[in-house]
Amino acid sequence: MLKLYYAKGTAALAPHILLHEAGLPHEVHLLDFASKQHQAPDYAAVNPKQRVPALVTDQGVLTETPALLLYIAQLAPQAGLAPLETPFALAVAQEFNAYLCATVHVNHAHKMRGARWSDDPESYDSMRAKVPQNMAESGALIEQKYLKGPWVLGETYSLCDPYLYTVTRWMEADGVDMGTLPALTAHRAAIEARPATQAVLQFHS
Amino acid sequence: MLKLYYAKGTAALAPHILLHEAGLPHEVHLLDFASKQHQAPDYAAVNPKQRVPALVTDQGVLTETPALLLYIAQLAPQAGLAPLETPFALAVAQEFNAYLCATVHVNHAHKMRGARWSDDPESYDSMRAKVPQNMAESGALIEQKYLKGPWVLGETYSLCDPYLYTVTRWMEADGVDMGTLPALTAHRAAIEARPATQAVLQFHS
Repeated sequence: MLKLYYAKGTAALAPHILLHEAGLPHEVHLLDFASKQHQAPDYAAVNPKQRVPALVTDQGVLTETPALLLYIAQLAPQAGLAPLETPFALAVAQEFNAYLCATVHVNHAHKMRGARWSDDPESYDSMRAKVPQNMAESGALIEQKYLKGPWVLGETYSLCDPYLYTVTRWMEADGVDMGTLPALTAHRAAIEARPATQAVLQFHS
Repeated sequence: MLKLYYAKGTAALAPHILLHEAGLPHEVHLLDFASKQHQAPDYAAVNPKQRVPALVTDQGVLTETPALLLYIAQLAPQAGLAPLETPFALAVAQEFNAYLCATVHVNHAHKMRGARWSDDPESYDSMRAKVPQNMAESGALIEQKYLKGPWVLGETYSLCDPYLYTVTRWMEADGVDMGTLPALTAHRAAIEARPATQAVLQFHS
């Protein structure tokens, strides 16, 4: 059975929701970041990067949120969670998820994870100070250029939607005025209303 | 015809090489970052993120390196550049490319692009100072855990290889002692010897 390692407040929420949307049997394992469970040797054997999410499959362990989302969509083609048969449409989805992963998530990480990129604690305040602006700019770009509505790719819910939802949840705490982002706000509410999301949120609060 | 926007020294080298490996007709358009051509309004109309690579197709523009690499592989299935029929194997490839995109490329970017994440110029030196360590740790992780050899995924060249090559080229200038990374060094030489790479490098020097 698939087993998802996750921590609260992380990107692991996205594949967790998608597992439910896909109807795939799975179990979850919560790691407590505060007590550094993700840095323990037994988790390093699961994921040498010591991050979440990690998905244990019968064939081995997979990491990196965009890779997990596409894998889950491919395991449940009947759920229609990715435009698997159309290279351009799939590339649009992958482009969106790559932007969340490599730009928006990285912007967010500069709030609490400055030590990844500098050994000078004095620099962390200046990184943290720029997070609201960077997250607001990313949110505006998504709202204006990428979110087709009502779902990310248009009329069909896909593997992009729980990922955007996960990132949008961060934006509010990152200091973004969500009143300037009505489409993102509506998207968040629409995801939150889905049974799969409701089934998962209790694990993350 | 496909048209790739690129700049020298960037991740755009990876899809450029893969276009040649795939045997896909294409043209390229060089943007000069020094004169800020990527920030001009005409390029913002192509890619509102004002980064490279961007690939213009008959169906629209695509961005983000991992998305371009998968798209190119899907356009030329006869070239066998991605394990498209095996979800787990494809996920392993996507996991690798996501790590390059969201972790290794981001580590590298802290050398010259500190202004993305802080408005305090004094912090940029401390970010730059950590680049050799972060790139060396990423290189070691790739060498020990992910590069199967001789190619990233094992016996078959794939969409992961030109991307790793692109990142490995950065490592030397980023202060990594490549003598500690013999497998990465051998991989770089093997990629460099391929005709597709040779055909492309002249555009990037």
